[in-house]
Amino acid sequence: MRRLALAAALAAALVPAAHAVEGMWQPAQLPKIAGALKQHGLKLDPATLTDLTAYPMGAIVSLGGCTASFVSPDGLVVTNHHCGYGALQYNSTKEKNLIEQGFLAKTIADELPGSPDMRVFVTEEIRDVTKDIDAKLTPDMSGKQRYDAIELAKKELVKGRETDGYRCDVYTFHGGYSYQLIKQLEIKDVRLVYAPPESIGKFGGDVDNWMWPRHTGDFSYLRAYVSKDGKSAPYSKDNVPYHPKHVIKINPQGLENGDYVMVVGYPGRTNRYRLAQEVQSAIDWTYPTQIAIYQQQLDTIAANGKRDPDVTVKYASYVAGLNNYLKNFGGQLEGLRRADAVAVKQKQEADLDAWLAHQGGATNEALRQDIAALKGKLKAAEATRDRDLDLSLISRTQLFSSAMRLARLAQERTKPDMERDAGYQQRDEPRIEGALKQMERRYDPKTDQDLLTNALVRYVTLPADQRIPSLDRWLGGASNRPAIQAKAASLYTGSRLGNTAERLKWFKADAKAIAASDDSALKLANAMLPDMKRIEDAEDARDGELAKLRPRYMQAIIAWKEAQGLPVCPDANSSLRVTFGNVQGVAPRDGVSYAPFTTVKGILEKDTGVEPFNAPKAETDAIRAGAFDGYASKKQGTLPVDFLADLDITGGNSGSPALDAQGRLVGLAFDGNWESVSGDWLFNPALNRSIQVDVRYMLWVMHHLDHADNLLKEMGVPAK
Amino acid sequence: MRRLALAAALAAALVPAAHAVEGMWQPAQLPKIAGALKQHGLKLDPATLTDLTAYPMGAIVSLGGCTASFVSPDGLVVTNHHCGYGALQYNSTKEKNLIEQGFLAKTIADELPGSPDMRVFVTEEIRDVTKDIDAKLTPDMSGKQRYDAIELAKKELVKGRETDGYRCDVYTFHGGYSYQLIKQLEIKDVRLVYAPPESIGKFGGDVDNWMWPRHTGDFSYLRAYVSKDGKSAPYSKDNVPYHPKHVIKINPQGLENGDYVMVVGYPGRTNRYRLAQEVQSAIDWTYPTQIAIYQQQLDTIAANGKRDPDVTVKYASYVAGLNNYLKNFGGQLEGLRRADAVAVKQKQEADLDAWLAHQGGATNEALRQDIAALKGKLKAAEATRDRDLDLSLISRTQLFSSAMRLARLAQERTKPDMERDAGYQQRDEPRIEGALKQMERRYDPKTDQDLLTNALVRYVTLPADQRIPSLDRWLGGASNRPAIQAKAASLYTGSRLGNTAERLKWFKADAKAIAASDDSALKLANAMLPDMKRIEDAEDARDGELAKLRPRYMQAIIAWKEAQGLPVCPDANSSLRVTFGNVQGVAPRDGVSYAPFTTVKGILEKDTGVEPFNAPKAETDAIRAGAFDGYASKKQGTLPVDFLADLDITGGNSGSPALDAQGRLVGLAFDGNWESVSGDWLFNPALNRSIQVDVRYMLWVMHHLDHADNLLKEMGVPAK
Repeated sequence: MRRLALAAALAAALVPAAHAVEGMWQPAQLPKIAGALKQHGLKLDPATLTDLTAYPMGAIVSLGGCTASFVSPDGLVVTNHHCGYGALQYNSTKEKNLIEQGFLAKTIADELPGSPDMRVFVTEEIRDVTKDIDAKLTPDMSGKQRYDAIELAKKELVKGRETDGYRCDVYTFHGGYSYQLIKQLEIKDVRLVYAPPESIGKFGGDVDNWMWPRHTGDFSYLRAYVSKDGKSAPYSKDNVPYHPKHVIKINPQGLENGDYVMVVGYPGRTNRYRLAQEVQSAIDWTYPTQIAIYQQQLDTIAANGKRDPDVTVKYASYVAGLNNYLKNFGGQLEGLRRADAVAVKQKQEADLDAWLAHQGGATNEALRQDIAALKGKLKAAEATRDRDLDLSLISRTQLFSSAMRLARLAQERTKPDMERDAGYQQRDEPRIEGALKQMERRYDPKTDQDLLTNALVRYVTLPADQRIPSLDRWLGGASNRPAIQAKAASLYTGSRLGNTAERLKWFKADAKAIAASDDSALKLANAMLPDMKRIEDAEDARDGELAKLRPRYMQAIIAWKEAQGLPVCPDANSSLRVTFGNVQGVAPRDGVSYAPFTTVKGILEKDTGVEPFNAPKAETDAIRAGAFDGYASKKQGTLPVDFLADLDITGGNSGSPALDAQGRLVGLAFDGNWESVSGDWLFNPALNRSIQVDVRYMLWVMHHLDHADNLLKEMGVPAK
Repeated sequence: MRRLALAAALAAALVPAAHAVEGMWQPAQLPKIAGALKQHGLKLDPATLTDLTAYPMGAIVSLGGCTASFVSPDGLVVTNHHCGYGALQYNSTKEKNLIEQGFLAKTIADELPGSPDMRVFVTEEIRDVTKDIDAKLTPDMSGKQRYDAIELAKKELVKGRETDGYRCDVYTFHGGYSYQLIKQLEIKDVRLVYAPPESIGKFGGDVDNWMWPRHTGDFSYLRAYVSKDGKSAPYSKDNVPYHPKHVIKINPQGLENGDYVMVVGYPGRTNRYRLAQEVQSAIDWTYPTQIAIYQQQLDTIAANGKRDPDVTVKYASYVAGLNNYLKNFGGQLEGLRRADAVAVKQKQEADLDAWLAHQGGATNEALRQDIAALKGKLKAAEATRDRDLDLSLISRTQLFSSAMRLARLAQERTKPDMERDAGYQQRDEPRIEGALKQMERRYDPKTDQDLLTNALVRYVTLPADQRIPSLDRWLGGASNRPAIQAKAASLYTGSRLGNTAERLKWFKADAKAIAASDDSALKLANAMLPDMKRIEDAEDARDGELAKLRPRYMQAIIAWKEAQGLPVCPDANSSLRVTFGNVQGVAPRDGVSYAPFTTVKGILEKDTGVEPFNAPKAETDAIRAGAFDGYASKKQGTLPVDFLADLDITGGNSGSPALDAQGRLVGLAFDGNWESVSGDWLFNPALNRSIQVDVRYMLWVMHHLDHADNLLKEMGVPAK
């Protein structure tokens, strides 16, 4: 009762009574929910949102892991600061630290090349290919046969379509209930145009990560370049700005509390349709186990950092990732416990089962049996989870991983391209080569060796039936830390793969040459290939079985929901989605209310002068002076910084444009609140909130602090 | 602007527009502020609050460090759980842990003796004695002469008045601007009647300490006993309940947002009239230095706890204190920084100086010069602050401290009682003996030795002119940790004062016997006595000078404020005070609003089953079932737990009754919010809030969970 009352007080008169609608909607689904879109305030025709080649969808692109939007006819792209971070890192030197100082290209000629792996993917076509894949499957197939058939069907669908710089991928929805072929233009020359200093773009840093109230100016600008004839091409001085078909318009007035807002982007992954037992396993095993391992990895890297400061630099990004996960996993556990998620899922499953039983008939009875079979398969898969984790930890160490990648690639190359395993086809080779090159920036042999030792110390506690014979042979009976340490040390002294030229030499070698190598890491990888293959085949077989059973579960869910008049949104899978709702505060717990907007006042409150709370002096001076140059909100009487909305987003949505009722840019999504961390499993409309940087703050920082008026002009923002 | 808007939204229509009135008012001051009291909602005649022998003041008592109130004609006293904690600790055994389980005496006969140092002080008389003291002072006195004259005058005022179990003390106000003689009945037989389990009484523990939203049921009940003839007497089976003249009435309906509320109690100490340079020194030196030292002490105790689990038990309360201070000091630094306290104080001082200069005349000019002199004295005092700190650290170690206490007492005993130093008079001897006894429960020789070593390692870095010759002679040149460690070890092997009987034997010994002792600790203490005396004399001289100059500063402040029509509230000094205001939430920072009430919903949210968030199952079941037995707030539709008010309280107010407009009990103050931690230096009406446990939660816990209906009946609370 209280919570609702507080939320209502905050939300004021503009908020529609309706709750947020959970869902990362496929564009094609939007006409089905046109009523809800209108009710929440959308002024555009929902049908226009289904056309990927029309406004605004045509202007929204993937960066591969992040989202961005075209904001000028000359390929200017806006995204989060943390999405453009790699370009800042790539261009920073000890003398000129662009991360710290920020960067502004005053002219096109000043723009800097992004890191070689930066991409802009423009989605041009989404086609349902469920029938094409289902046609290759028969009910009597074994798990492995089904897995292989699906993989082959996917490859065939992609084959021949990846010309002229296009990339095609078959995306799986609902665990295999449906499939879509998605065609994207892959722009490979992406340049750094502008980023505010880290003290704005990353203000609050890890401390504020996943937290509200937030005061981060998490935005930056890139530009997409293509060859002179308009085609995708690697970086070249001769390339020219790409001209997108559509450009997102800017609404410099921004939004106010209760206003309609939608976020369009490429959310990575959610687990909303996982079963109760999978949630239970995440709570009991996955998160606690990973927390302990990540903590150990951090300790190991810190110890090596004391020995050699270079290690700290090389592993900075890895450490940031570990800390990020640790905080996330803590939030997952807290959220799942608080939501009583296992009980909620159990009740859903019981209700579904009761509904199926009540419907009756052979079809529904078969669904019930398949759901029971799914539960059994998932339970059985738990038997190897410790082994699978250990193997992944070993495979994540860099020397072993590059050796295994080289050995595996050489082996796959002996097959026709279509028969190669996914990830080892010709189309994947440039990425493999890139990764082999990149390793030198992030590799310290002693640290890598310590991490491998940790993983092996864990591995040797596995029961006999879970052990990997080839790895055991290499270990030669080493079963305690000192012995394992010695064994690991021998791997590093006996290998030359720490050297980039050496790795690139072996990248060109054939399987026979690798088999004959005396490099200790290549020898180990080569010896383990058959076991790895066996384990992968077993995994494929399991996945094939799940690819048969999960769609059955989803089929039941969809039927059940449709009977209630509810559309079903598929789990996120990095494909383009739309989520909509309203600007809204939140009452996260008893006695606490969060406002929907933060304001520049909070920057002064948080500013300590010490990173990550070291706002630039020009900024704090301007805030104290109230020098907002007309960008402030009249309604709020001050300049907003970030805002909350009851939208449904997840990792991958970073950089997604927040659009108003007319589809104009009013901010960029960059995070969720702490209560939304476990929302990947279970969405709670009362607590889940997305966090956006406000367009007014972006424009003010650009104009007042960084003098990026060239960009404001390019974007068509009226001069102040 | 935003903050006010939010606060207004939370505070609703009932809150008066006026801000909270800073101030821990002396009862005698209340008629002066009758207008403000009425405006905020007081329904009683403010004049009744000035009469210590009338209702309600006559029912409010000190526990020495905490406050409590009589709530039955048979001497039943209500206070905080953390104020009755010593009695729970004293009566707990490994088999029967009363702290964990809670305790309820179903009949008077079941009540348990409190720890021997527990006291109830009933204030019966407050008399201004400024003239009596000032009459003994002349302007030409040296600092030391002035100090001694004040001390002697105080002793003479007390002399002969401490009969029949009464205790008299002269309290200093405004640093010596005025003095009051306060006479209190000292009740020595205080028994444990009832406390909820720790999982209610300390719910949230150190994690929630100083935090809001809070869900702690911080209350317990004691009973005051006297001899059959109604006089103060030590514990005896034959003692009978004390019959207080007044008993606080209970208002089981409690308060709602915006209602008038006042807290009456014994706040310990504030620093509101300290100078800018004193605040600066606290920020630059005191807090950072203490934080480092306390952290080291915690590490030392933790290391010893690993060696011997008994150490953990013995030092548990000390460790809790250190953690408490560490958190507090962090809050002080954060709050002082955020409030820009030094600048605020500097401006006040400049404004005062300008006012004095503008007033002109010899009197005001003299005040200006004395204030300048005060600043000089304070600056000079910083020269010995490191030495003073080191000496206090050494003196806090237990072996040294008991040896020094014994040596000092024996020496003081050679003088007539009136000439003895304060704290070593006949009236103080029982307390000294008690402390010598208590040591056995909290002493581990090795830990104590390590703490002494730390202090000495710090001491030897002092410059030569700050060193203590007798201590240096004992150290014999030891100047690094190993040498100091060895020296400290020899102190412990050569002393028998670790033994209680031995300490009590020496308690009876005379100065000659102690001088002749071969006990290493007594020898060191005895050798250091002249140096200690010299240092103390210098401190006394400084205090005597400050006792001349601070009142001049206060005289200027008072004149200045009075010219603006503002009464001046003296800093807290453990004397009886009244603070008033309204129930009110707070907007602690940009984007965050806290409600004025927490509710039982928050207990479910926080409950993890793990201490300190392990609510009893009976409680969580009852909350889920909504079984509030009529104690819930109709307005809120649920059961409130704790509430905020814009009152001005500090340490010592713990257990103070929160009274409604009619002077009826509606809760107990037990903490302040995080933003109020630095309020001891600078009160911020917009951010400072006191935290009270709500009477409705107290009564519900007593009735529904602990079945303490015997007490409810005794207190005259209508049965539900």
